[in-house]
Amino acid sequence: MKRIIGMMMVALCLFCAAAVPASAEEAPGQAPPAVSQPAVPGPAAAPAPAVPVTQKTLDDLKSSLQVGIDTAWVLFTAFLVFFMNLGFAMVESGLCRAKNTVNILAKNFIVFAIASVSFWFIGWGLMFGNGSPFMGLEGLFFAGGADNSPAVGEAYKGVYAAINWTGVPLWAKFFFQLVFAGTAATIVSGAVAERIKFHAFIIFSFILVGIMYPITGHWIWGGGFLASIGMFDFAGSTVVHSVGGWAALAGVLLLGSRTGKYRADGSVNPIFGHSMSLVTLGGLVLWFGWFGFNPGSTMGVGDGSAIAHIAVTTNTAAAMAILSSTLVSWLIQKKPDLSMIVNGALAGLVAITAPCAFVSVGSSAIIGLIAGVLVVLAVLMFDKLRIDDPVGALSVHLVNGIFGTLAVGLFAQDKITGTATGNGLLFGGGFKLLAAQAAGVVSVGVFTFVVALLVWYLVKAFMGLRVSTEEEITGLDLGEHGTKAYPDFQGFLTK
Amino acid sequence: MKRIIGMMMVALCLFCAAAVPASAEEAPGQAPPAVSQPAVPGPAAAPAPAVPVTQKTLDDLKSSLQVGIDTAWVLFTAFLVFFMNLGFAMVESGLCRAKNTVNILAKNFIVFAIASVSFWFIGWGLMFGNGSPFMGLEGLFFAGGADNSPAVGEAYKGVYAAINWTGVPLWAKFFFQLVFAGTAATIVSGAVAERIKFHAFIIFSFILVGIMYPITGHWIWGGGFLASIGMFDFAGSTVVHSVGGWAALAGVLLLGSRTGKYRADGSVNPIFGHSMSLVTLGGLVLWFGWFGFNPGSTMGVGDGSAIAHIAVTTNTAAAMAILSSTLVSWLIQKKPDLSMIVNGALAGLVAITAPCAFVSVGSSAIIGLIAGVLVVLAVLMFDKLRIDDPVGALSVHLVNGIFGTLAVGLFAQDKITGTATGNGLLFGGGFKLLAAQAAGVVSVGVFTFVVALLVWYLVKAFMGLRVSTEEEITGLDLGEHGTKAYPDFQGFLTK
Amino acid sequence: MKRIIGMMMVALCLFCAAAVPASAEEAPGQAPPAVSQPAVPGPAAAPAPAVPVTQKTLDDLKSSLQVGIDTAWVLFTAFLVFFMNLGFAMVESGLCRAKNTVNILAKNFIVFAIASVSFWFIGWGLMFGNGSPFMGLEGLFFAGGADNSPAVGEAYKGVYAAINWTGVPLWAKFFFQLVFAGTAATIVSGAVAERIKFHAFIIFSFILVGIMYPITGHWIWGGGFLASIGMFDFAGSTVVHSVGGWAALAGVLLLGSRTGKYRADGSVNPIFGHSMSLVTLGGLVLWFGWFGFNPGSTMGVGDGSAIAHIAVTTNTAAAMAILSSTLVSWLIQKKPDLSMIVNGALAGLVAITAPCAFVSVGSSAIIGLIAGVLVVLAVLMFDKLRIDDPVGALSVHLVNGIFGTLAVGLFAQDKITGTATGNGLLFGGGFKLLAAQAAGVVSVGVFTFVVALLVWYLVKAFMGLRVSTEEEITGLDLGEHGTKAYPDFQGFLTK
Repeated sequence: MKRIIGMMMVALCLFCAAAVPASAEEAPGQAPPAVSQPAVPGPAAAPAPAVPVTQKTLDDLKSSLQVGIDTAWVLFTAFLVFFMNLGFAMVESGLCRAKNTVNILAKNFIVFAIASVSFWFIGWGLMFGNGSPFMGLEGLFFAGGADNSPAVGEAYKGVYAAINWTGVPLWAKFFFQLVFAGTAATIVSGAVAERIKFHAFIIFSFILVGIMYPITGHWIWGGGFLASIGMFDFAGSTVVHSVGGWAALAGVLLLGSRTGKYRADGSVNPIFGHSMSLVTLGGLVLWFGWFGFNPGSTMGVGDGSAIAHIAVTTNTAAAMAILSSTLVSWLIQKKPDLSMIVNGALAGLVAITAPCAFVSVGSSAIIGLIAGVLVVLAVLMFDKLRIDDPVGALSVHLVNGIFGTLAVGLFAQDKITGTATGNGLLFGGGFKLLAAQAAGVVSVGVFTFVVALLVWYLVKAFMGLRVSTEEEITGLDLGEHGTKAYPDFQGFLTK
Repeated sequence: MKRIIGMMMVALCLFCAAAVPASAEEAPGQAPPAVSQPAVPGPAAAPAPAVPVTQKTLDDLKSSLQVGIDTAWVLFTAFLVFFMNLGFAMVESGLCRAKNTVNILAKNFIVFAIASVSFWFIGWGLMFGNGSPFMGLEGLFFAGGADNSPAVGEAYKGVYAAINWTGVPLWAKFFFQLVFAGTAATIVSGAVAERIKFHAFIIFSFILVGIMYPITGHWIWGGGFLASIGMFDFAGSTVVHSVGGWAALAGVLLLGSRTGKYRADGSVNPIFGHSMSLVTLGGLVLWFGWFGFNPGSTMGVGDGSAIAHIAVTTNTAAAMAILSSTLVSWLIQKKPDLSMIVNGALAGLVAITAPCAFVSVGSSAIIGLIAGVLVVLAVLMFDKLRIDDPVGALSVHLVNGIFGTLAVGLFAQDKITGTATGNGLLFGGGFKLLAAQAAGVVSVGVFTFVVALLVWYLVKAFMGLRVSTEEEITGLDLGEHGTKAYPDFQGFLTK
Repeated sequence: MKRIIGMMMVALCLFCAAAVPASAEEAPGQAPPAVSQPAVPGPAAAPAPAVPVTQKTLDDLKSSLQVGIDTAWVLFTAFLVFFMNLGFAMVESGLCRAKNTVNILAKNFIVFAIASVSFWFIGWGLMFGNGSPFMGLEGLFFAGGADNSPAVGEAYKGVYAAINWTGVPLWAKFFFQLVFAGTAATIVSGAVAERIKFHAFIIFSFILVGIMYPITGHWIWGGGFLASIGMFDFAGSTVVHSVGGWAALAGVLLLGSRTGKYRADGSVNPIFGHSMSLVTLGGLVLWFGWFGFNPGSTMGVGDGSAIAHIAVTTNTAAAMAILSSTLVSWLIQKKPDLSMIVNGALAGLVAITAPCAFVSVGSSAIIGLIAGVLVVLAVLMFDKLRIDDPVGALSVHLVNGIFGTLAVGLFAQDKITGTATGNGLLFGGGFKLLAAQAAGVVSVGVFTFVVALLVWYLVKAFMGLRVSTEEEITGLDLGEHGTKAYPDFQGFLTK
């Protein structure tokens, strides 16, 4: 343990040493206006001479206002996505047992810190740096490459050209992408809960956010080969959610199921979560945060119709998925199961993430309807396969991440809000778009699953992956953290 | 049960079939600009020739920027209002017993899904469609009528003329109004808690949001007869809160009180909530969300002074109501009661919702002060009347919804932030405004209460309203959902 | 008790009497445009004649749009800071025992109401009114002085000149500053928890927010003597956090430690919090709210690069502080302690609050790294000194508030985002800036600590400060409020 901590300490110090000079690259060639002395004249400003203004002046004005507005929008929605960390923490801890709560909360709290450091260190550069169709190669470290954002399009000069379509400053782009990267890591947390060693999860998260996520992200959002073949993933059903899901699946397979979950006779011993209040709280926080995730992915408010459309498709899919998951759960389990209702909402949200900007509101309803059915069936299926996922992360993020990506190929209509995607299969576009989407699903899935398996394997070999059975029974709170989540309440440790 | 589920399944499929073609109506005659290729030139764009620009060009520029800004504001505040669902869920579950928690959370989670579907299906059209003074008649289904938003005023061409004063796209208007409609349904949830059947609540919510709420909403916000006589309800003390309150009162009367609440000797057996942490959490989330509810109802940032004024009146009323409810509770109950403090805040917020844009900050303080007193007295009164409202929803939303609406007639000052309301009684305007407000209170109250009574009655007749006494004693979590909220914690089921 | 309540009642009535006329001062000389009839022409408006426009017209347009955008930004970020009240409430109640939960929640809920009233009554005027270098003297009451905001700079005419650099309406400035003032009072709450009388805390909070906080705030943000000597505190490491910390320290010293915390033999008896779920929830809400606290302190979006930069420095410091506090806690306590991880995040956020706009992202990482170490050592140190701070508020807000303020003098680089601060010691600026920062730390610290000691002493003398030992052992929930937080769960009252 001490050795690992020592290594991490050294790594941290190296970061910092490297980071300080990076500050010199900030705002290249720009003298930012004084924060405390805005140049905006007040209503009663001294009258200016009546000189006619030119189109150039007007364009400059629009540009200067637009940068401010777009930056505010990008940051506001990024904050909402950041807030999803709370949602994940609450859903996961609520769906697990009281004796593992501290461990789960600690994982969820530290994972965004890990993501913040590793995405800054290397992830951003690998994902958005100019380079090959397979990864970024320029401006790799500390988001420190040349960049004259908020310049856009032809006017952009720098090494992060793939994201030059949004007219916001570099750090706004970075922060928005960071909160997405953080989401991928939190997805893993839920699936491996209640049995993974604390530091094993930390190491894996660092590699996932720093290396794996940015590489496949580059393929789609960084101008890589999947972008080239016409694959579309508006806000990340594949880039974020299925990547998190594949990484989680690899971990679950290597970890094995929780002690006592599957009986020798093949039957399933349900393990109930310790607080449905936390689960519901988390579910609503995630839904709230998704209004940053999807509408925010416009990365600007230049097209108000687009962001309003996306807000409505996002919400409609969630609502319909809740209804269908409730009904299916009611039919199969005889009573409406709250955890299925909450996971239904999340399934609908994951499924609409890729197509939200490319499909009609009516189509979003159908996508949500299907997602809600899929998630209930998937939960049952994974239990049949004895793949133990305490929170249903695979059913929500992997299964519906795949479905949502394919749904673009089925339901897209050319020019719903902006980008011309071509029509999907159900709107007369044939299999072209669907094939590109499927290629994306398969290539990202194979890469992430294989690499994740390898990384998990190495972590297992070098420091161990799973806590002892004794610790698992006592609870990871005592074992990993030497404490309890609810010390004033008695009698839950024996379970 | 199966029959109901089957019916709902069929209804869902019909929605979807109808919904897909609706997509063709989107953005009529508009080719939205590409999301991923914004037309905004960067700071270093190629120089344009120095041609003088005209007023027309300038107006177009302003318009294009304003639409983006206003849309961002409307969506941002709508997200805050959406987040109030979490507040309601936490306040209600916290104020009820642990054994009914899952049921309460499930109701609160699904109710916004129900609202999303029914308001999209028919509610929006009934509320904002052009039609008679009593309801909308055009563009009824799926928000699918002709509409050239964000055009405003004279330039607007479409069937939703009553809301043509805000320059945002149709879906932004729809989404903002949807989150308000959802609020009305969640209000009902609290009053009928701990004894209503899950599906009875779902059916009622669907009808409330799809039919009842939009009709009375049309009278005030949809250009109906109450708008014509000069009644003002800025953000919905009547449109949202008292409507929810009246619908809840009808339900409570038909349901009866919880078993054991009122003893045979006439005394009250207080039933305590199971988690004051959740109550406080919910209260603060609601206060936070109200900053979307009230300031957001400007539906644009064209008048910065107005939204800042509204934020301050909203907050001041809440603060003063907390102080007065704390003091009154301290005096009457001898100790400051936390549930009264939280309900005090909500009472102040409900009361200031109608007048927030029409009264001074000083007046908002007095309105809050009165609201805080009213809510404590109302809670005691309803208990005297043996009307059992587990969370105080009637005292908060009905009593203070009425008071807030009348407060416009008392405290309004002409042109505080925009709309000329005329002066209220206390500012020399006589009884004219107060009379219009009272007419609104009475007509909305009578309609909603009578129709709600009828709907509740039909639900009761056809599928039953109340769970069995046995189930009520065991808890609705086991009865309705077959599960427990806190399975790791023992010993609370016997209460 | 009755006498106090009576006095408060009278005070409330006086407020209101004074408040009503204050409304006449609103929006001096302005006829705000109608909220419901925006002047913005729609895309299809009637064509305007092709008259060339002048620079004056253009400036007016920019100004009018900028006011709306900036107001939306200021309010949005203010709402996030308001939301921090939830974070503080959850962290504090979670880190304390179940038997004191209602009391802690009630304190945290009412404290913002108190702050809202006292800052409106007198605090705003003392802080931002024109006056001496030591306090505001004009426009003292009810934010009622002359003011033509959103006019800025030379065009500004009014008595709140120190905050004339931001082009937003007066009430937007007021509300933004109010939520900051409220934060200072909530900091105190945590340190004095589990033993202070409810009304003693209320009285102190009123004086802190109404008198003490605004006076020292005037020195730095109100154009006072610390501003004059070139001290910089961008978002309030000193103005807000260390002021709250000094006031708390004075209270803790007069209150003494909780019964049973320190044993006679000098050893420490750790008292565990009752819910780590609430602690983590609160920590993430605070982190989320800090994105309002720091980026919002630009009070406008005129410089998009600045707000993006500030968002990233804020997040980076939090992330690095989490990593360093985790590691230090792991090394010292042998296991990673969740309460240290959460307090680590808060420590990093407090420390970066002053320098967030003045340092590079690399420097923010180092500042965070140090803050995370400091907070763990400080918690241990205060326990060594037998200064009993149940939630670590002193370690987070006082120690890191001081460190963050000094960090400006060490790490500042001239013109990172706007204001020219000059370089700090580590960037070749010598001791000049560091000396000014130290002067600020010392003068604010001495004043606040001495006055707070006096106020706490008077409260103690006139109404008592600490509950009886019997009440402390039974719990303040029963003693102060006559209720329990979790009545359905048994067995926690004996602890």
